[in-house]
Amino acid sequence: MNDGSYDGYGAARPILIGGCWQPATASEIFQACNPATGQKLPEIYPVSAWPDLEKALAESRRVCQEVASAPPEKIGRFLNTYADLLEKNQEAITTMAHLETALPLKSRLRSTEFPRMINQLRQAAAAVEERSWCQATIDTKLNIRSKYGPLGGTVVIFSPNNFPLAFNTVAGSDLASAVAAGNPVICKAHPGHPGTTRLMAESMLEALRQAELPASTVQLLYHFSAEDGFRLVSHLAVAAVAFTGSRAAGLRLKEAAEKAGKLFYGELSSVNPVFFLPGILKEKAEAVALELFSSCSLGCGQFCTKPGLIILFNDEAGRRFLWKLQQIFNQPLAGYLLSQAVLENLKKAVEKLKAAGAVLLAGGNQIPNCGFQFQTTLFAISGEQFLKDPGTFQQEAFGTLALAVVAEEVEEMLRIAENLEGNLTASIYSSDSDPQDEEIYRKLEPVLRLKVGRLLNNKMPTGVAVSPAMHHGGPFPATGHPGFTSVGIPAAFLRFAARHCYDNVREERLPEELRAKNPNGWMWRLVDGLWTQSDII
Amino acid sequence: MNDGSYDGYGAARPILIGGCWQPATASEIFQACNPATGQKLPEIYPVSAWPDLEKALAESRRVCQEVASAPPEKIGRFLNTYADLLEKNQEAITTMAHLETALPLKSRLRSTEFPRMINQLRQAAAAVEERSWCQATIDTKLNIRSKYGPLGGTVVIFSPNNFPLAFNTVAGSDLASAVAAGNPVICKAHPGHPGTTRLMAESMLEALRQAELPASTVQLLYHFSAEDGFRLVSHLAVAAVAFTGSRAAGLRLKEAAEKAGKLFYGELSSVNPVFFLPGILKEKAEAVALELFSSCSLGCGQFCTKPGLIILFNDEAGRRFLWKLQQIFNQPLAGYLLSQAVLENLKKAVEKLKAAGAVLLAGGNQIPNCGFQFQTTLFAISGEQFLKDPGTFQQEAFGTLALAVVAEEVEEMLRIAENLEGNLTASIYSSDSDPQDEEIYRKLEPVLRLKVGRLLNNKMPTGVAVSPAMHHGGPFPATGHPGFTSVGIPAAFLRFAARHCYDNVREERLPEELRAKNPNGWMWRLVDGLWTQSDII
Repeated sequence: MNDGSYDGYGAARPILIGGCWQPATASEIFQACNPATGQKLPEIYPVSAWPDLEKALAESRRVCQEVASAPPEKIGRFLNTYADLLEKNQEAITTMAHLETALPLKSRLRSTEFPRMINQLRQAAAAVEERSWCQATIDTKLNIRSKYGPLGGTVVIFSPNNFPLAFNTVAGSDLASAVAAGNPVICKAHPGHPGTTRLMAESMLEALRQAELPASTVQLLYHFSAEDGFRLVSHLAVAAVAFTGSRAAGLRLKEAAEKAGKLFYGELSSVNPVFFLPGILKEKAEAVALELFSSCSLGCGQFCTKPGLIILFNDEAGRRFLWKLQQIFNQPLAGYLLSQAVLENLKKAVEKLKAAGAVLLAGGNQIPNCGFQFQTTLFAISGEQFLKDPGTFQQEAFGTLALAVVAEEVEEMLRIAENLEGNLTASIYSSDSDPQDEEIYRKLEPVLRLKVGRLLNNKMPTGVAVSPAMHHGGPFPATGHPGFTSVGIPAAFLRFAARHCYDNVREERLPEELRAKNPNGWMWRLVDGLWTQSDII
Repeated sequence: MNDGSYDGYGAARPILIGGCWQPATASEIFQACNPATGQKLPEIYPVSAWPDLEKALAESRRVCQEVASAPPEKIGRFLNTYADLLEKNQEAITTMAHLETALPLKSRLRSTEFPRMINQLRQAAAAVEERSWCQATIDTKLNIRSKYGPLGGTVVIFSPNNFPLAFNTVAGSDLASAVAAGNPVICKAHPGHPGTTRLMAESMLEALRQAELPASTVQLLYHFSAEDGFRLVSHLAVAAVAFTGSRAAGLRLKEAAEKAGKLFYGELSSVNPVFFLPGILKEKAEAVALELFSSCSLGCGQFCTKPGLIILFNDEAGRRFLWKLQQIFNQPLAGYLLSQAVLENLKKAVEKLKAAGAVLLAGGNQIPNCGFQFQTTLFAISGEQFLKDPGTFQQEAFGTLALAVVAEEVEEMLRIAENLEGNLTASIYSSDSDPQDEEIYRKLEPVLRLKVGRLLNNKMPTGVAVSPAMHHGGPFPATGHPGFTSVGIPAAFLRFAARHCYDNVREERLPEELRAKNPNGWMWRLVDGLWTQSDII
């Protein structure tokens, strides 16, 4: 079956339902593609028909209560064991991920993304065992007690193409968060890296077994039709959906899910504007230009936090900076786009910007090659042009593509900021000592603050640290809800949690987190208005 | 204008836009009705056409950033001053509320609901000034800092008919929460109590003035068409919607809002099931029956937490309890329904239950009277019948109406619990000493836990204390998101907050809550994993 030939649906890899790898009820099949060669990879994967989804839903429903009741130690053990097993299979997994995504094997997959994934799983395990994430809140006088707990339904995860490991549907932040909060999960693989997902799911299943959690806690389907996706997310058994991907697909899923009363957490699009104030460009235009390019081209421009919009002034320092940027963007850079679809979308974005009157300063063409490659591309327009049609000029496209907006004056820069859609991030680069920069900052910051989740100073947005203080989210259309983050533990758990209140319930019937005795001696609880790690006396 | 006659739209009361009471662009007018007499009240109110909504939106947008930047002391002063001014006008407000709702003046409006409203505003003021609600989370090593902040858009509040004071659109928990989180608000009055709302809005405007907040921070419209409502909640300037009311209307608003990427917090419906285990009914059937009736008939059965579904066993104690209940429900009880619409809805619910085969044990008829009165009504059905069509038997209807479901055995009771929709609350009554009750509880609790926001033991659900540990919310369709509460401060604020992250931002540019020095010396912050009130050193 590994020779690349197609011999019927029977040749397709089995899906994971109810803890068993079983043949799919496939109506179609698909193969991943090596972006470096443009060639299909040999493994054949099924596009599941509805009966597969229905089976997975029934299984998920069957174990929902058992997963919800699992003690934190079991869930912690699962997450830690999973991390251990993945580490044992690191070579096979990263090799497969490299084949399927053409992301650099050593510098990216092995040294950066794999450790990040492992770290995330271990942080989630630690947070589950620590228990503070549930924000136990106790009113001893009224004997009312609340904590976060499971949703009581399935979480469906749709994962993106750009992080085959750290945001993989079966091992990423969404999976870790949904299970940590006590929910069963149905995962849809990204069709760009089914083999990577399959290898990881094998470790996942073994980890469930070792932790003695129900085998149906996490199930895996590789692909299904958009219509079956809508049917899935609106199903009775489902409580929430996590989606990271394109805005168009995300909005359709969002509508289907929310119409049925399901929670939808979507990471939909972001152009991550970076504002350059005059002082910093006077001081170090070249260093900043290199920093910007390095961030913009990271992962071949396929980060949700890629700085895609640059705002600067039409003054001498600004023009010199743009000139420098143009030179840097005009140098050839190796790197592959993740798929033909990403390439086509990038081409379209370039044509759209051209048609809208943006000036092409660098790149703009596909690199003739069997793999998916595109020149690093830089556009520019005036602030006036931007303000005439702000929507057109802030559409996300993967690839090393950026648009510089050149403002004539501070007022225009402020109006550009006011016309931004919701974004994951915004950065302001300013001098540490220039009073003019400080003055502009004071006007610009309050506008940007309300438009984005994370505001950075003199820093590019692409690094998203896994810290409890991180926020990876933002006002619509960046994400569906600006109060929730998909990165950062334990805050990411809260997307998949309901608030459980106990009113006049006696001690021995309460969950451990709400009893007089602190269950592990170190979890934080808010008791009568004071945060404490002590028992209640 | 107070003689009840209608002399053109000019006679209609002005609306509050941009801090000025101004004539509405009205296409229609309406009058409130005294539910005790069925007569229209003299004051005439406008049904605003779109230009009014547009003006309010423009004003709201204009002040959005200023409201977002207002220091906590100003917002706290507003909420406290508002409470003071309302207290000065207590007599006029409660008298008007009594006229418009026929709720008992002394026992309900003056002694209970008015103080609750005042208490809520003052608690909100204290929480804003205390600042802990923003959950400042600081990672000193990475210099990443996050807190909750304003949404950056307008909050639209649609308030219910049943609490003219404590959940009034201009003074209830939603208003206090939305303003506390730093958002401008557009309020739609409930057309059942426009006069009460008007009187309170006068105090509100004066409080804004005294606190030196923008006069457009809170604006008031009395009424508009459903279509204009959909247009309003999907408008660019709007960030979130708070709705408490009927499920049908709520779902339509939810769809319109969410399709446009707005947050929707709806309290939509709940039947608040109460389970009676055999032991407690053996011990004190009569006391418990009286307790149930008292809760069910509170506010004439017009509480969102009214116990509307009773589940018990077909054993001797159960049958005796039901017999007792039937006697109590058959006694005449004074009290008015809030409107003709509530009366009609109640009649429909009764007909529906009859048609579905439920047995009428008490009441069931309108009381012939000029006011809106209906008999206290009790139905019963078998567990088997319930399970054949669970949807029909758990539809919320205001009024003193309850449906008893009689289960034959524990398994059947569990299946009934499994077939419940999401609810705000569920109660379990059990004996403190009966081991059989305890055994059933252990099976029933995990099922109910995932279906409801608040789980009560031996307590009726109608009391919703304003405590930080309270949770008034639940899985869909009880509310739109089971992680958020509309009662309980400061948790209720979080519905109207975005997470604001600061990455590599220097000390003097940070909001006070995230700087090294604790801004007031007592706010709680999560610094490097530890909750503390100390400065960062």
